[in-house]
Parts: sequence; structure tokens; C-alpha cells
Amino acid sequence: MAKKPSAGRSAGSERIDLAISGGTALILDDADTVIADALVAIRRGRIVEVGPRRRMERRYRARRTIRAEGQLVLPGLINAHTHVAMTLLRGVKDDVELMTWLTKYMFPLEARFATREFVRWGALLACWEMIASGTTTFADGYFFEEEVAKAADESGLRAFPGQGILDVPTPDAKTAAEGLVRAETLLSGWAGHPRVTPSLFPHSCYMVGPQTLRETAALAARYDAPILTHLSESAGELAMVRERYGTTPVRHLARLNILDGRWTAAHAVVVDEEEIALLADAGVGVVHCAESNMKLASGAAPLAKMLAAGIPVGLGTDGAASNNDLDLFGEMGSVARLHKVVTLDPTAAPARQVLRLATRGSAAALHRERELGSLESGKRADVIAIDISGPNALPLFDPYSHLVYSAHASSIRTTVVEGRVLMENRRVRTLDTAAIARAASRYGRRISAAVKPQQSSSPEASAPKRP
Amino acid sequence: MAKKPSAGRSAGSERIDLAISGGTALILDDADTVIADALVAIRRGRIVEVGPRRRMERRYRARRTIRAEGQLVLPGLINAHTHVAMTLLRGVKDDVELMTWLTKYMFPLEARFATREFVRWGALLACWEMIASGTTTFADGYFFEEEVAKAADESGLRAFPGQGILDVPTPDAKTAAEGLVRAETLLSGWAGHPRVTPSLFPHSCYMVGPQTLRETAALAARYDAPILTHLSESAGELAMVRERYGTTPVRHLARLNILDGRWTAAHAVVVDEEEIALLADAGVGVVHCAESNMKLASGAAPLAKMLAAGIPVGLGTDGAASNNDLDLFGEMGSVARLHKVVTLDPTAAPARQVLRLATRGSAAALHRERELGSLESGKRADVIAIDISGPNALPLFDPYSHLVYSAHASSIRTTVVEGRVLMENRRVRTLDTAAIARAASRYGRRISAAVKPQQSSSPEASAPKRP
Repeated sequence: MAKKPSAGRSAGSERIDLAISGGTALILDDADTVIADALVAIRRGRIVEVGPRRRMERRYRARRTIRAEGQLVLPGLINAHTHVAMTLLRGVKDDVELMTWLTKYMFPLEARFATREFVRWGALLACWEMIASGTTTFADGYFFEEEVAKAADESGLRAFPGQGILDVPTPDAKTAAEGLVRAETLLSGWAGHPRVTPSLFPHSCYMVGPQTLRETAALAARYDAPILTHLSESAGELAMVRERYGTTPVRHLARLNILDGRWTAAHAVVVDEEEIALLADAGVGVVHCAESNMKLASGAAPLAKMLAAGIPVGLGTDGAASNNDLDLFGEMGSVARLHKVVTLDPTAAPARQVLRLATRGSAAALHRERELGSLESGKRADVIAIDISGPNALPLFDPYSHLVYSAHASSIRTTVVEGRVLMENRRVRTLDTAAIARAASRYGRRISAAVKPQQSSSPEASAPKRP
Repeated sequence: MAKKPSAGRSAGSERIDLAISGGTALILDDADTVIADALVAIRRGRIVEVGPRRRMERRYRARRTIRAEGQLVLPGLINAHTHVAMTLLRGVKDDVELMTWLTKYMFPLEARFATREFVRWGALLACWEMIASGTTTFADGYFFEEEVAKAADESGLRAFPGQGILDVPTPDAKTAAEGLVRAETLLSGWAGHPRVTPSLFPHSCYMVGPQTLRETAALAARYDAPILTHLSESAGELAMVRERYGTTPVRHLARLNILDGRWTAAHAVVVDEEEIALLADAGVGVVHCAESNMKLASGAAPLAKMLAAGIPVGLGTDGAASNNDLDLFGEMGSVARLHKVVTLDPTAAPARQVLRLATRGSAAALHRERELGSLESGKRADVIAIDISGPNALPLFDPYSHLVYSAHASSIRTTVVEGRVLMENRRVRTLDTAAIARAASRYGRRISAAVKPQQSSSPEASAPKRP
């Protein structure tokens, strides 16, 4: 006779470390399985099994149980393109012409403020925001990336910190050669970490020349490291690349013969059918950054065409200076709405597809689809639970629809990465959030003081309009 | 010698009912005044004055004080176009072609479920969601609008319930004549209410014929009542109107010679320059519903042109069946991003303009700009306070930027309408939210059961694509 479990307690014989119990689980497997009153069993940082609670309780005995009644439980969201340090420049200047924004605000501010300490506090602030909004993995490109790696390590998040490599002086390297040395130090120093995958971030093919790109690709091959980059973000980029190389950014990289399944390219807004085929053939992952592309008026990436071509496509928020947050829930809603209005097709970017982009899609774009992006047995235990007791979740006909069109990031209750509880009942357990808030406010005051004198009495009026 | 106030207490001689104290106040006056550490003084439902806290404390003595340190305090948002009963159909079917959505889902579901009780519970659910997300006024169009009026009255919100008038049988009227009788009953029954302004909602010029439109306009003139309608939402509407009347919707209404400053038209997506001039000359208010227009793939309204022509433009969420929520914070972000990407101009729809649209703009679109939409002395005391202690508000360079691009609706702490506190510290004080949640879930189960048999095994696959 089977042992009778006590109510709501795991009483089986098989030991697990953590149970997330009683929520409605979205597995994000091929069948889009949804399990009501589910139990997620986690051991040694991996998903053991997800199944109906009563059956699971008979089988497993959990050292620790998190109750998730009245919540949806799903794989953590994956932000496949961001610049976490730039949270400290969140909203410092919006709604201006792109080149004005870059040359008058971003570049001077970064030249003055983007120190190691800035990266450290910006990364910690970003980790706090991501944990609190249900993001469990992020891919980053910036400078002093060892600080991003450390922030990820401390906060418990999973990360792909990408060391910036540019053919112009940067905050942490006078030359590309120096950047490559820094990058190799990062790759060797963080090799083998279970959550932090050190990566390379050659900024773009307009800031990095062919020789440096080749050396970056060679370094990536030696360490089997991911390469993150910006690619075909805007018409302005295309004009620059055409002037310099007589071709488009994708074709330029393809001709260098360096593209392969280690690459993850952000944006891909301005790509034609042949370029889509080139990216698909090379196995390059693409990160769609809808809100950034909207806010900077870059355009709408050809999402449906890229997916149809078999490109692994994920989602990214880009940096908080151009979004202005790291909220993948808002991002999902924007993706679903943007593609409908630009194609005039209300069936474009349906909710299920969009939630898949933010989970399995981002995992695939980062070439980690076998480990991340769903709650299937054996995958890394990166799990979030979101409250659905609020009025915006009533009635709840379809959990995918709710998550994409109506959910608020701040309804996330629990965030688990590699089986470790980073936030429970909205309390972040791994970070000193008060210290981060103080540091962010301190930077805010310093940066405000630096920006104010640059502004005319009416900065909007003085920014040139696009022709 | 001046009386010395005790710390944080109003100690002046002038009595006020309510003080909201210590937040950063955005007045939304012509100068876009922002006051740090402000006190909002409220008496008999009106703003008496907003000023620096220390000075205000010397002048006023408050019966009750709400602390708003670490919060932004601003005029309540105004949702100038919605269908509150349809919260009960939130997300029941997304991502399908528009006519399929209407004819296979919305119309049959409304025919079966849209009873008086449905409207009552849907309206109460919507009032809960709006109070919790910082909306203090809404304009509604549906059936059994006396139930919407009652829900607004009970919840404490300000509302313009618009009784549906159609030339086809509706859930509450077999004929337009019956609808007009119901409308007149609403207008006379709720006349003089301080917060509820009974209104007329002739659905559109494709569902309401010329004679009924004239009678509606005459009824509105007799009672000096607002007229809410849908206008030029989509290419499909234009085709219908052209076939029937040989012209466009705006020109059709203009020729009937009924447009005036009582009208508030939702959408105006497909309007040319001459039609914009017609609307401006007639004094018609326009409600921009960006998220609904995106989700239903209707297009992007010519916001900048309408504003340049002097049309009073506000924002609306539309019904939750096409949005899928009543969250004006999300809506503001979508407005700011949509117009940048469709015009490829990153200076389009800047944050200040968008926050103004959701407050003063909506007030003006409803022809109530002298009473609502800012925290200026003498206006109705509709005030919200939003927490800015979260990571997504750090650093805070510009409160407008934060509210439009980064804030979450669920960070609203306090909602005040006509000087009455409807929510404090996120606790809604005027509604039995548990009873509303139970009713919404009950409707959810009944509606799910009704929808399921209609669906084929793969509903998305069976929905026809647009040519």
C-alpha cells in the first residue's frame, strides 16, 4: 500500500533539494504542456521532473518547498542582449535624434563615468532589476566585464558577460590588442563556472576592423567561447559599412568567413532575404530587441522571416539607456504588438510564439537550448513564479496570453537559478539592495550634474530632426 | 513669530481635508512644474494648492495626511476610451484575424453572456484594475450602462458611462429607439452626480444610421451630454462606410452636420489631412488607442498631425478583449515607442507629451480640461502616488521618462478621486475585491466552457489569414 502523504507535503522516498509546489506550470516543451497544480522537483541545480503535485508528492521528499498556489510557474526569462552597466544611464536622455543621443550624451558620459566601479554598481543594479522581474539569464556586452561576471556570480544569476573589443580606445583598453588580452583573461579566469560563461563582445563591424574580428574569432575558437555583437541595427550603420567595405554588415562578416554557431548577433533590423539565409546557414543566433529598435527609431526586424529561415531568435532589452528598463515582460508585449501593426496582420507574433522567444528562443540564440529555456527534465533549474491574483489576471483564459499581453514584471514572486532561490515573496536574498540603491542614487546625482550644463534651455528644440 | 510645525505634521491655521505629503509632485501645468518634497492640499474634493511641504505645513492643517516620501505624485490618469464590461473577456481569444475575432468570438460571446449582471461584474473588475493602476477617470461605451455608472459610484472612480445606441438588436435594446429611451433614462437618472457624467455611445457610423445619429445628437444637446463613438478605426470600416455612403466616416458625420464639442471619437487611425481639419474645426476630441490598434493590426493614428491641428487628443486602452488590460502606464510606453518606429523619428512622441496625453490630453478630449488632468488649484482632486524605490526607477534622471518608459502600474501606492482615498498602500478601500475575483473566475469558467467546443483542435490554423 502506498504511503499516504500528509497534505501539501512531499513524503516520497526520492530526495530532492527544492520543490516549487501548487502553481500552474508552463513547461515550454514542444507540446506546450501546461500542468495545473504542479510540482517542480529540483536537485543539484537541475530540473528532475515536473508533474501533477499529488503524484509528485508521493514520489519525492523535498528539503525545501516553495508554495506557488495562485501563481504561474515557468522557465526564467532570458535577456539575450543587454549592457547592464548602462542601467546607471537609464533615461538620462530620451527622445532625441540618434547621433545626438550617442555623440552628445552617451559617448561623453561613458568617457567620463564608465569606470570599473561604475560597471560594478550598474551590473549589481541590473541584477537586482532582473531578479525582481523574472529574468534568470542575461548576455552582456560592455567593458570591465569581469565586474559583470562577479555581479552575476554574487547575485546568483546566469550570465554571458562579453568583454568589449573595439578598434578605438575604450574605458578599459587603449587598443583592440589590449581588449583582446583583457578578453582572454576573462575567458581563462572564469572557465568552468557553472553559471558564468565568459564571452567576447566585438562591438560591431563598424567599430571593429577585419583583422581584429579575425583575431576575436580565433580567440573564441581556442576557448570555445560565445561571440556577441551588434549587427545591422539601423540604416545609419548600413551606410557606414557600405562606405567602408562596399557591402552590407552581414555580407561583410560572411566574406570574412568567421561566422559560425558561436555567434549571437543583436538587432538584425535591416537584413534582406539573402542575408537571412547567410545567418541561418552559418548557425548565427539573432537577438530581437523590439523596444530599443522602436525607441531609437531603427525599425522592425523581419522576425517572421528569420524564424521561417530557421534562425534561432531570442529577445533582448538592450541597455537601459535605450529601453529604459530590463523588463522582458514589457518587451514581450511590445514584440507581440509591434509585428502586428507593422505587418497589418493580427495573427503575427502570437503570444505562445513570443513567450517561446523569451525562453527557448533566447536559449537557442545563445546556443544553449539543450540546457536552458524550458522546464524539461535534466535542464538547469532556472524557474520563476508569477502571481496571478491581481485584477489584470482575471479571468485567466490562457496563461500565454496573460504573460505576454497583461502581466506586470513586478508580479514575479520567486526567482530560482541553478536551483538556488534568489528571490522569494519578492524579497531578493542575494543582494544588498539598499547599498545598490544608495550607489545608484549617488551616480544619478553626479551624472545629472555633468549633463545639465551641456543642455541648452530647451534641449529638445536644439536636437536636429532627421531629414 | 511663526508657529513652528512639528516634524512632518501640518500645523497651519487653514483647514484642509487631506494632505499628500513628501512626494515629488508633477503638476502638469503649462510650465511642467515639478516640486520636490511637495504637499498637495485637498479640500471638499478639490486641489487647494500644491507647494513645497515646509511652507505648506505652516499654512495648512490637514485632517488626514498620506505620506508619499519616495513617490511621485501626479494627476490621476484618464482612460478616455474603454469598454469596462469586456474585462470579463480579457484574452479569451488573441492573435486571430479581426473578422474571425469579431464574428466567431466577440459577437457570439456577447450575445450569450452580456447580461446586466455581466456588465455589473465586468465593470467592478475594471474599477478594481483601474484604481490599482492609477486611473482615476474612464469613459465607457457598452450596454446596461447604469451598471457601469453604479460601479463607478460605488468604487469612487470618475466616469463617463456611455449608453450603447445601435441600429441592430443589442443585449439591452431590440431597437435604436429602445436604446435611446435607455440612454435618456441614464442621462436623467444620473444628472448632477459629482463624478458620474452620463453619456451617449452611438457605436459608430457603420452600426448606427443617419437618422439615429441625428436623434442621438439631439438628445445630447437637450441634456448637454457627451457623445462617445468609434471613428475611422480600420481600413475595413472605411470600406464599409464607403460602400454604404460613398464617403469616409469623418466626412459622413461632418455632412450630417452633427459634430460639435460634445463628441469624443476613439481611434481616428485612418484619417487624412482634410478629415483632421474637419475634426479640429468641429471641436471633436480624439482618443488614441495605440495598443488596441497595434494588437488588432489597425495601424498607427497620425498623432503628431492631429496635435498640430489643435485636436484635443487623449489616450484610451480600449476594452480588455483587445489590449488586454486597462493599464495606462503600459499604454503610454506603447504610444511613445509606436510613433518613433512608424515615423522613423526618435524625437516623436516624447515622454512629456505622452504623459500629458494621458492626463490633460484625455481631459481635453472629454471636454473637461478646466476640471481635470492637472494638479492646479481649483481642479478636482484626482491624484495618484507611485513608488519609485524599485530598481527600475534607479537612477531617476527625469520623472516623465520614468513614468512613460519604465514605471509599472502596480507600483501605484495611492489613488485619490474627488479627494476620497480609493487605495492606500495598495489596499483598495472601496471594493470587495475578493467577491469580484470570485465572480470573475466564475464567469471565466462559464465562458471557457462556451468557447472550447467552437474551437477546432488547432484554432490558429483554422483562422483565415488576411490576404
